[in-house]
Amino acid sequence: MKLFRFGAFEQEKPGVELPDGTKLDVSAFGEDFNEKFFATDGISRLAAWLETNSADAPQVAAGFRYGSCIARPSKIVCIGMNYAKHAYESGATELPKEPIIFFKSTSALCGPFDQVIIPRSSEKTDWEVELAVIIGKKASYVEESSALDYVAGYAVHNDYSERAYQMERGGQWVKGKSNDTFAPLGPYLVTPDEVGNANDLNLWLSLNGKKIQDSTTSDMIFHVPFLISYLSQFMTLLPGDVITTGTPAGVGLGMKPQVYLKAGDVVELGIEKLGNQKQEAVAWKAI
Amino acid sequence: MKLFRFGAFEQEKPGVELPDGTKLDVSAFGEDFNEKFFATDGISRLAAWLETNSADAPQVAAGFRYGSCIARPSKIVCIGMNYAKHAYESGATELPKEPIIFFKSTSALCGPFDQVIIPRSSEKTDWEVELAVIIGKKASYVEESSALDYVAGYAVHNDYSERAYQMERGGQWVKGKSNDTFAPLGPYLVTPDEVGNANDLNLWLSLNGKKIQDSTTSDMIFHVPFLISYLSQFMTLLPGDVITTGTPAGVGLGMKPQVYLKAGDVVELGIEKLGNQKQEAVAWKAI
Repeated sequence: MKLFRFGAFEQEKPGVELPDGTKLDVSAFGEDFNEKFFATDGISRLAAWLETNSADAPQVAAGFRYGSCIARPSKIVCIGMNYAKHAYESGATELPKEPIIFFKSTSALCGPFDQVIIPRSSEKTDWEVELAVIIGKKASYVEESSALDYVAGYAVHNDYSERAYQMERGGQWVKGKSNDTFAPLGPYLVTPDEVGNANDLNLWLSLNGKKIQDSTTSDMIFHVPFLISYLSQFMTLLPGDVITTGTPAGVGLGMKPQVYLKAGDVVELGIEKLGNQKQEAVAWKAI
Repeated sequence: MKLFRFGAFEQEKPGVELPDGTKLDVSAFGEDFNEKFFATDGISRLAAWLETNSADAPQVAAGFRYGSCIARPSKIVCIGMNYAKHAYESGATELPKEPIIFFKSTSALCGPFDQVIIPRSSEKTDWEVELAVIIGKKASYVEESSALDYVAGYAVHNDYSERAYQMERGGQWVKGKSNDTFAPLGPYLVTPDEVGNANDLNLWLSLNGKKIQDSTTSDMIFHVPFLISYLSQFMTLLPGDVITTGTPAGVGLGMKPQVYLKAGDVVELGIEKLGNQKQEAVAWKAI
């Protein structure tokens, strides 16, 4: 199943894309794709509801805005330097022995085609295509062998990063990961049955039409089941929580000379089976 | 006004303590102390509601459990090394030039008298008494001069920390800050009118009856208005969000030899005008 959310920012409604591409407004199901939905086996309940109600559900009118494919989760857990070439391009001298964890503010969430706002004083706004995992049920001290049972689905994520904030402003990366619009998520949450092996998906990103990230999730140092098990030792993962699994080589930080976003730049990205995103960079301005 | 929440974990109800110590169940007000409450000027509305309804509101029966004084926020932002002596005891060779920011998983929130669970493989669970600031309205690019307008209130927080997870397991402190029960918050959210100058409050912590942290918030390197303004450049602070402002010297990490919690230890802590907490340490066990 492919879940999406549509409509104005923070007023999104739930939708389902059928295998033939039809996009249904499932507002009549009465729930948003949030913690409670996932915690109460919402995907199965929604599938059952569709069997008897899809004929009556209206189609979403063309030209709609995609929101984040899930409502705001309790947390976005990010994995750092999880692709070898990216670790080296970022200045690491050796690969991580254990996953590097940092958080991203959930207030950064936005839709996959929203503009990305370059923060007011930013000079080093950078991109990172990543496979995001959405947790389906509460996970604490989970074994790796059963970890995939805790996955609700997968989505494309662009882990926007302000490198000066992240690395030149006094430590702890969250500082450069949390500005508004720094977490486009979607367009779809795709359920595991449609994804198959999440450990073997092509992912890519282009800047102004030139492909600069191009890899596969099989290149991850730490794979999804291990990550879920590992994280669940340090925190309880709640239904709807997002784990974003790191980016491959090709970020602006790693280029010589370094390249960062300026207003008007266009970032496109995608992951096999999960869909594509596109963001235009704009300068911050007071609302 | 003093807000608190009472009842079973994750089923808490809202309460208000009156100036004479009477504890009212304000469930009839119909709202929890959550993001929506703060975003819609809930404290003023509740105060107005009390003027006509307090006589009819039942008192909370003795022996109740205090929950976290607010419902789960969008984020808990922590400030690291914000007291000079603590920075040095933690191994810093110089004081931070800018605030060190890290996050704590909101799934760690609990009540001020709940047991603290020592994680399964933990050997270095440590304490940190801290002044927590609860944000009252959305804050983005806020000036320091108006920053206090964004404060809903203050509370006691114990920023429990697993030092091996935090510092020996591959970088980024969130890893050692986020286990369940690592964020007792409360007993009260106390509104600014009752606190006065939050920059001049005594705070203390004792382990098994011996006082080991004893300082004043006036010793902070970066004070509350600056912190709110600073943070709001890097992320949007939402109503109900928590900023926890760092701990003074006296943590287990800084002792020679180092001291960490073992089952049966009792931690008590408090901040002038905000109330006290008490936690007994227990070993993790499968539920």
